[in-house]
Amino acid sequence: MKTVNSRRTIRKYSRKIVPENLLRTLLEQAERTPTMGNLQLYSVVITHDTAMKAKLAPPHFNQPMVEGAPVVLTFCADFRRTTLWAENRKAAPGYDNFLSFLNAATDALLYCQTFCNLAEEEGLGTCFLGTTLYNPRAIIEVLQLPRLVMPVATITLGWPDEHPAQPDRLPVDSLVHDETYCDYTPDRIDRFYAEKENLEANRHFVELNGKETLAQVFTDLRYTKRDNEAMSAGLLDALRQQGFL
Amino acid sequence: MKTVNSRRTIRKYSRKIVPENLLRTLLEQAERTPTMGNLQLYSVVITHDTAMKAKLAPPHFNQPMVEGAPVVLTFCADFRRTTLWAENRKAAPGYDNFLSFLNAATDALLYCQTFCNLAEEEGLGTCFLGTTLYNPRAIIEVLQLPRLVMPVATITLGWPDEHPAQPDRLPVDSLVHDETYCDYTPDRIDRFYAEKENLEANRHFVELNGKETLAQVFTDLRYTKRDNEAMSAGLLDALRQQGFL
Repeated sequence: MKTVNSRRTIRKYSRKIVPENLLRTLLEQAERTPTMGNLQLYSVVITHDTAMKAKLAPPHFNQPMVEGAPVVLTFCADFRRTTLWAENRKAAPGYDNFLSFLNAATDALLYCQTFCNLAEEEGLGTCFLGTTLYNPRAIIEVLQLPRLVMPVATITLGWPDEHPAQPDRLPVDSLVHDETYCDYTPDRIDRFYAEKENLEANRHFVELNGKETLAQVFTDLRYTKRDNEAMSAGLLDALRQQGFL
Repeated sequence: MKTVNSRRTIRKYSRKIVPENLLRTLLEQAERTPTMGNLQLYSVVITHDTAMKAKLAPPHFNQPMVEGAPVVLTFCADFRRTTLWAENRKAAPGYDNFLSFLNAATDALLYCQTFCNLAEEEGLGTCFLGTTLYNPRAIIEVLQLPRLVMPVATITLGWPDEHPAQPDRLPVDSLVHDETYCDYTPDRIDRFYAEKENLEANRHFVELNGKETLAQVFTDLRYTKRDNEAMSAGLLDALRQQGFL
């Protein structure tokens, strides 16, 4: 795990393939991650096929990693397998509800992160695509996900063909609270965000986008209220369609 | 990460304290986990205080780990810090919606899992408490979590004082799908669940509970439709209260 200290997201991959047995071994080792009642409420869809990657690209806003990576992994919250198991064992399952979705999403995300930590220890590079939650219905259709299966995370995977700079992170004091939540005064906000705001790259980014502050780049361009509200509606629709709401 | 292969959940801890600098170092190293737009949409509330543990125990169904562990960590989806940052920088945040909750929950869960993987490499034991999602409103009150902060995971942490058997896991083939979702036929269900169902401990567990199948122990006793539906309502209420719905 010492590799975690030098971790960076990898978006460019070499042509070298990821051996199938390595991929399976890592997916199997990651199963040691804690899971609700040992039910393992997750599934992973592996995309190798070029045509399938081309279909997955648009829901991921055509980020070039999807078609450029040797492997794309879609991690799904999955209560279907457990539900079918119950139905085949004279048991009446009750997992078509919101709590069960979050239980399964938790299992899937924890599993995904252990997988990434293991893969990076092997020298593989990963990129986490947050876009999975933006267009879930399109991904559901491409991967043919049935009721009680919901995609929650996508990873592109391959051998690194770049060595980008490590991004900044907030000081640990900014995210740790002792005993109760210690709210953020303007002073503390200034202190915690100073390093990030003063980085040359971020100053340049603000200027490039014609904004006054770095926060405005996020609120006005990258993650806007309008987009978030539209995508929230789509996400809730997808949860209804998959039987979780 | 080779420790992952021998991982087990630890519910009994020795009296040895977890050094504060080790805890901080692990929380800081875990910050290398990917995060949406490098916003780090999470917070961690550290509980050391005995009286605070006693208050946290009931929402966690009085599982003895809460009061028995030297440290309890509550990982929260947190859009409050980012929102305050924006408000202090002439930017108009729009993160009081469902997508933003899931974005922040994703960040918090990935971060939590890297933290656990790192802690276990140091020889620490952890227990993941799924109960966080069952009684979020009580936890919110105890930890004084403000609007746009939602608890999503709790970990008890300490030096192991037990060495339990490793639980079974499903064969990796049961959770991996190539290119599209390969649905589960009764035959495949039988094959994938055979090992679990035939374990001596699980057979005994079924008998002890007066049930006919292992699945019935889950559907009728551990995770019932009725409980899931009641707790789903409470969870949605908590999300509304915290401003995410």
